[in-house]
Amino acid sequence: MTARIFPTAQDAEGAFYEALERADLEAMMAVWSEDDDVVCVHPSGQRLAGQEQVREAWRQMFSGGPSMRIRISQQVVVTGMMVEIRSVHENITVAGEPGPRPPILATNVYLRTPAGWRLVLHHASPAPAGAAAEPPAPTPPAPKTLH
Amino acid sequence: MTARIFPTAQDAEGAFYEALERADLEAMMAVWSEDDDVVCVHPSGQRLAGQEQVREAWRQMFSGGPSMRIRISQQVVVTGMMVEIRSVHENITVAGEPGPRPPILATNVYLRTPAGWRLVLHHASPAPAGAAAEPPAPTPPAPKTLH
Repeated sequence: MTARIFPTAQDAEGAFYEALERADLEAMMAVWSEDDDVVCVHPSGQRLAGQEQVREAWRQMFSGGPSMRIRISQQVVVTGMMVEIRSVHENITVAGEPGPRPPILATNVYLRTPAGWRLVLHHASPAPAGAAAEPPAPTPPAPKTLH
Repeated sequence: MTARIFPTAQDAEGAFYEALERADLEAMMAVWSEDDDVVCVHPSGQRLAGQEQVREAWRQMFSGGPSMRIRISQQVVVTGMMVEIRSVHENITVAGEPGPRPPILATNVYLRTPAGWRLVLHHASPAPAGAAAEPPAPTPPAPKTLH
């Protein structure tokens, strides 16, 4: 359906959060593996398994159009042979709200497939209070003026 | 430190939940990769990264000794070349409590290493209300009547 190839897991991750910000269902699903073995857990949501459930949840989420900005911070990356596991904080600001929401902790697992790197699992859950106080790893990093 | 080899990811997962029930720190850490690239998120907890943080959290959790029984249900498994991703519901009963707690949704990622299959990531978060009522992974999915 789509010919987009992600040469690295990081590229796939960039496309994932871009699609999320743009509420672009086709761009979002192009990041996921084409296999039916995909798993997605939205914050405080039911576990979704398989293309249909995963797609339907994004479709519903995107039905209102783009509404949020996402800044990713505090990446931790675990790499294997043909796999990359990325643990990140998602700092989400929703249009019309005064400030960012409490951060979300996400695990994203990418596999290297014949069609490039693809997402096979996204597990997101609310980070505990206090997680927001950690330094926000901006790019490029701003000089630290405190302690 | 330990010579235990897990020939499959499922074996490693069995040992993980056994160590958790027994509150056995050494058995628990023997399931984890020996690399420092390990990530652990306990339900509603901070993200822990690296051997020290992961071990210290289990040590604290186990300090009171064994107190729970865990039944795993609704496994969904995604496999790659040298990786296995297991998404499960953890149904935990704590000693002295009348019934099981609300289920926990866990993502466990295992890599095949020279020392057998090892855990590199555990991300657990509370499952939403109603998750306990789900049928245990029916195939095919029930028809959707609401939307």
